[in-house]
Amino acid sequence: MAVDLAAPRAGALLPVEGVRLGWAEAGIRKAGRKDLVVFELSPGSRVAGVFTRNRYCAAPVIVCREHLSHGDVRALVVNTGVANAGTGEAGLAAARSVCDALARALACEPAQVLPFSTGVILEPLPVDRLLAAVPAALARLAADGWLDAAEAIMTTDTVPKAVSRRVEIGGREVTVTGIAKGAGMIHPDMATMLGFVATDAGITQDVLERLVRETADASFNCITVDGDTSTNDSFVVIATGGAGAARIADARSREGRALAGALTEVASALAQAIVRDGEGATKFITITVAGGRDRAECRQVAFAIAHSPLVKTAFFASDPNLGRILSAIGASGVADLDVARIRVWLDDVLVAECGGRSAAYRECDGARVMKQAEIAVRVELGRGDAAATVWTCDLSHGYVSINADYRS
Amino acid sequence: MAVDLAAPRAGALLPVEGVRLGWAEAGIRKAGRKDLVVFELSPGSRVAGVFTRNRYCAAPVIVCREHLSHGDVRALVVNTGVANAGTGEAGLAAARSVCDALARALACEPAQVLPFSTGVILEPLPVDRLLAAVPAALARLAADGWLDAAEAIMTTDTVPKAVSRRVEIGGREVTVTGIAKGAGMIHPDMATMLGFVATDAGITQDVLERLVRETADASFNCITVDGDTSTNDSFVVIATGGAGAARIADARSREGRALAGALTEVASALAQAIVRDGEGATKFITITVAGGRDRAECRQVAFAIAHSPLVKTAFFASDPNLGRILSAIGASGVADLDVARIRVWLDDVLVAECGGRSAAYRECDGARVMKQAEIAVRVELGRGDAAATVWTCDLSHGYVSINADYRS
Repeated sequence: MAVDLAAPRAGALLPVEGVRLGWAEAGIRKAGRKDLVVFELSPGSRVAGVFTRNRYCAAPVIVCREHLSHGDVRALVVNTGVANAGTGEAGLAAARSVCDALARALACEPAQVLPFSTGVILEPLPVDRLLAAVPAALARLAADGWLDAAEAIMTTDTVPKAVSRRVEIGGREVTVTGIAKGAGMIHPDMATMLGFVATDAGITQDVLERLVRETADASFNCITVDGDTSTNDSFVVIATGGAGAARIADARSREGRALAGALTEVASALAQAIVRDGEGATKFITITVAGGRDRAECRQVAFAIAHSPLVKTAFFASDPNLGRILSAIGASGVADLDVARIRVWLDDVLVAECGGRSAAYRECDGARVMKQAEIAVRVELGRGDAAATVWTCDLSHGYVSINADYRS
Repeated sequence: MAVDLAAPRAGALLPVEGVRLGWAEAGIRKAGRKDLVVFELSPGSRVAGVFTRNRYCAAPVIVCREHLSHGDVRALVVNTGVANAGTGEAGLAAARSVCDALARALACEPAQVLPFSTGVILEPLPVDRLLAAVPAALARLAADGWLDAAEAIMTTDTVPKAVSRRVEIGGREVTVTGIAKGAGMIHPDMATMLGFVATDAGITQDVLERLVRETADASFNCITVDGDTSTNDSFVVIATGGAGAARIADARSREGRALAGALTEVASALAQAIVRDGEGATKFITITVAGGRDRAECRQVAFAIAHSPLVKTAFFASDPNLGRILSAIGASGVADLDVARIRVWLDDVLVAECGGRSAAYRECDGARVMKQAEIAVRVELGRGDAAATVWTCDLSHGYVSINADYRS
């Protein structure tokens, strides 16, 4: 039951010159569902990524970081069902053997293949089944495979997540198309569960690396469903240069800013789609904290609200029990907050000021906003000029059901 | 549905010489339930407390801190239903007027009265109704009022929480009796929701202040239900000296250590009772993290496990989806953990080592432990000699129901 989120139409997803995608049913965990995706990239494509900071990061994350340092990536391979995390040395060997097999099939080096996994942690990757399905995925390689790929990387997602944008850069039409998956274990730290965005813009490696960090910071790093940071978070941007425009070598140039804008637009739409499809979500909440001394403290307060189970269940219940928001702000760990200066709004309704409830606040106004499917919480800290926004969802019976039943 | 927690028998609660308790039905939020408690203390009693660090701390917390600095406390007054938090200047005036009224009735100074509140945040305290009920509470003052008092401070608690112990100190029998309330918004930071422990031991003020901090640190600061730190957390120890033993003036003396042991025993039992009665709890989980460099990092890892909604729902489902525990450890924020050295047990079952699943681990062993109502998680970090233990419960449909329905 995603919040205001429909599956993209296949025709709405624009191919990216230089990227072909194929899928297969490998039966990694369950038979009869798409669970394997291969991306084939044209020679000369640039790729950069950001990955989870979880110390139990998955084997494919370790291998991705290694292979990205070599450059010249030619393929990505993604499986769902098993995360290949908490799998020790055997997991690393499994991830490498997947790269080896794909490299043989595509006549490239293993270090030119990036592996990704998502699914259950602490279980071995069934490499044989995965490799047996690779030929079927390669046989389907096509430029219009984006929607199938978005479906194939889903786990507890209920809606495939894919977005395309066109932007003019240096007199040429440039395409940005991306897909993502994720619904639970969502509190990305440098990245989301899995996000892949490709563009046919041309760009130098160092500028791309800068843009991928900035894009993640403005999108996937601003969301949370349950505050759990995954072992497998990975966000990758591919730039093929297939549009034929001049290569962008300066992030601050007009072309660099145009591409950054398009990447952020696509990544933010994907990140918000993850929250809208958050496990059990019935509400989409935008939390903006302004008037802070720096962005870090604004994010700290915003995530304290977004992570509070009591705030989240109040949203689920459409109950304007708004003191829970004040309590979350107060317990955020920003040590010297002066509550007498803090103001809190729910959409356009001023709820709290001067350390307590606003004199003008009426319960019926709070109740009206709480009933909405989309709600904005705005906090003004009154101590500076910085601001930050995070997106989250409510905590419902659906979340408990999904996570009590998943895997079992 | 508390986990292995029965209401105490009235006869099991020992009076403390110098403490009388009375209750009333003030109708603070709902009619026909006990919601007001008065403690009357004999002259010369020593009182010390620790309070929430929430910046939106309640008005009574602010007044308690002020009044404790004057010393010579003669009464405590506790109401449920309304927390008197997020109530600004009006809330402070309300808390002070309660102290004034009680002081008049008991012929003492307002600064000799400590006020406490718990309940809904952001709503005004109905002072008139509270004051109207004070005479009834005073008329009931009795040394054996502990169980009634434990019932009167309950909010979403399903079981009253009260514990007594006897210990010999300096050749005299000394009594320690305490009550506490709390079931949700439980991640105390210096204290719990509300906890009151009294002893007839004699003790100097500075030693009592040290003991109350140490006791909180070993009990209420080791629990979490939902990671939400309340605006009203307060833990108070009263020492009346009524047993007639010599006053304890050294925390490290044999007598000081005996009293500290008894206080910690009572406070730990109360803290664990709060977790056993955690909102929606069906499992009681003890998480011990050992082999850390210091206690702080052990607590950080233990609370990361205890706060993970995914770990908590897996416990609810009795599902040995134990990779979620590894992921929580990895995402705990202890930056340089070496997962190759970490071992994880579920009761006596070794689950993970060398970065992955233990070779000896069998799913049926994990499933067996996960079905239990009481489960121990043990993590060995392999980098030092420090250890810490925290207690928590699972996350169930009951938690969502209680917090979606509470107040509405």
